[in-house]
Amino acid sequence: MVHPVASMQWQLPVNTRTAGGGGSLFGGVGLAAGIVALEQATKKPVVWASGQYLALTQQPTVVDLEVRLPAVGRNVTQGRVVGHLGEEEIITIFGACGERPDVARGLWDSMPDARPPETCEAMAGHHDVPSLSDHVEIRIARGMFGFSGAGKASGDNRSLLWVRMPELHNDPGTLAIIADYMPSALGNALGRMMSCTSLDNTIRFADQISTEWVLCENIIDFVGNGFGYGQVRMWSESGVLMATASQSMIVRPWQYD
Amino acid sequence: MVHPVASMQWQLPVNTRTAGGGGSLFGGVGLAAGIVALEQATKKPVVWASGQYLALTQQPTVVDLEVRLPAVGRNVTQGRVVGHLGEEEIITIFGACGERPDVARGLWDSMPDARPPETCEAMAGHHDVPSLSDHVEIRIARGMFGFSGAGKASGDNRSLLWVRMPELHNDPGTLAIIADYMPSALGNALGRMMSCTSLDNTIRFADQISTEWVLCENIIDFVGNGFGYGQVRMWSESGVLMATASQSMIVRPWQYD
Repeated sequence: MVHPVASMQWQLPVNTRTAGGGGSLFGGVGLAAGIVALEQATKKPVVWASGQYLALTQQPTVVDLEVRLPAVGRNVTQGRVVGHLGEEEIITIFGACGERPDVARGLWDSMPDARPPETCEAMAGHHDVPSLSDHVEIRIARGMFGFSGAGKASGDNRSLLWVRMPELHNDPGTLAIIADYMPSALGNALGRMMSCTSLDNTIRFADQISTEWVLCENIIDFVGNGFGYGQVRMWSESGVLMATASQSMIVRPWQYD
Repeated sequence: MVHPVASMQWQLPVNTRTAGGGGSLFGGVGLAAGIVALEQATKKPVVWASGQYLALTQQPTVVDLEVRLPAVGRNVTQGRVVGHLGEEEIITIFGACGERPDVARGLWDSMPDARPPETCEAMAGHHDVPSLSDHVEIRIARGMFGFSGAGKASGDNRSLLWVRMPELHNDPGTLAIIADYMPSALGNALGRMMSCTSLDNTIRFADQISTEWVLCENIIDFVGNGFGYGQVRMWSESGVLMATASQSMIVRPWQYD
């Protein structure tokens, strides 16, 4: 998906594998590309990263990613990635990579109960053109998928989705893509289909473990003033917290433009 | 605290009002400066912002802030701020500013019960040099303040602090400073005093309302692999959600170096 073209430069192809149904780069893929570039540039595992979505980019094209590492530390290196098409900036990512001794442990919440993915309603592909969604399987364990109306609104601000990308390992890049389905909980929380545009996607990585499906515990924190905020906790099938993520969204009535 | 020195350039003095007890710039003040610069540059209210803390900066000095606005929209403008001392980058902030119609409303959680600030234990100033802490009042409503050991560990991952900065309005910049006391909940959650270094501070603004004290509902999400993640919900005395914030921390045993 991302490959280095020169020292501190990477490229992200925008095509039918990396674009959403509307044909433009899927935000979570842009964040994932920044994470891969930061990990390769620092040769360390990512700790956290935040992507700021600046412009929609229609396929087919190739986004250039420039990596800067303004703080190179002994254990932790911090950097940013500017993704651009010529002069136009498309996405900016910043984050930290590093490894440290495990000085303390704590996890106070546990994975919510969810029916096994095999017994949950499968999201039908809802795009009639090839897109990223052909490579992502989603099963609704609780609530409504707010962009399609599949499932049933939970009556509160929480939805549960099982998500897998069968062609990929669940590494930090893949988790960043999966995290970007959290805004589907907006429609569930409001009890009606809603549109939105993500402004950012911030992800923090906990323990990495092999899992087929990822349980996304989506929580909408607030909607008002034309914006909305939500978060997602990402669990392995065995109940290990793999990541938490959060984002800000521009909130729109369904098909409002 | 921040004033424009030229088009798209601001300055942040690092002094006894903006530095923590160790004499270096308090992270939340750096984020606040970026927020003020973004709001002044865009002439719009901030929606969300994230600050990446790159280097410690000892007082006295002046950090130069350079603002870029790569995505200027009709309603929402996105930008970033690079804070530097000459060639050395100190802090990078990015965020979005804007105003939109209030198309939908939702808030599913409510302010937790807390004793009034007047009846709560006051945090004693614990620095023997003038610092930001002389301008911030903290009352412990639940849990232990994890950097000083004041209060009593709650036995879970949640603490409640009343915080006010009597000299300032509770505008987004002030809330960004107050949000940066969330890491004090790390020691509460682990049941012993802990040290940490913040990697980032991400804040999302909900409804703004006048309040004397801000109730900070601090939640630690995960500690492991040398890092920790937490969030804070910031409530007015009347129970309005004013902001949510989250951050990644490098976690250290107390006085570990």
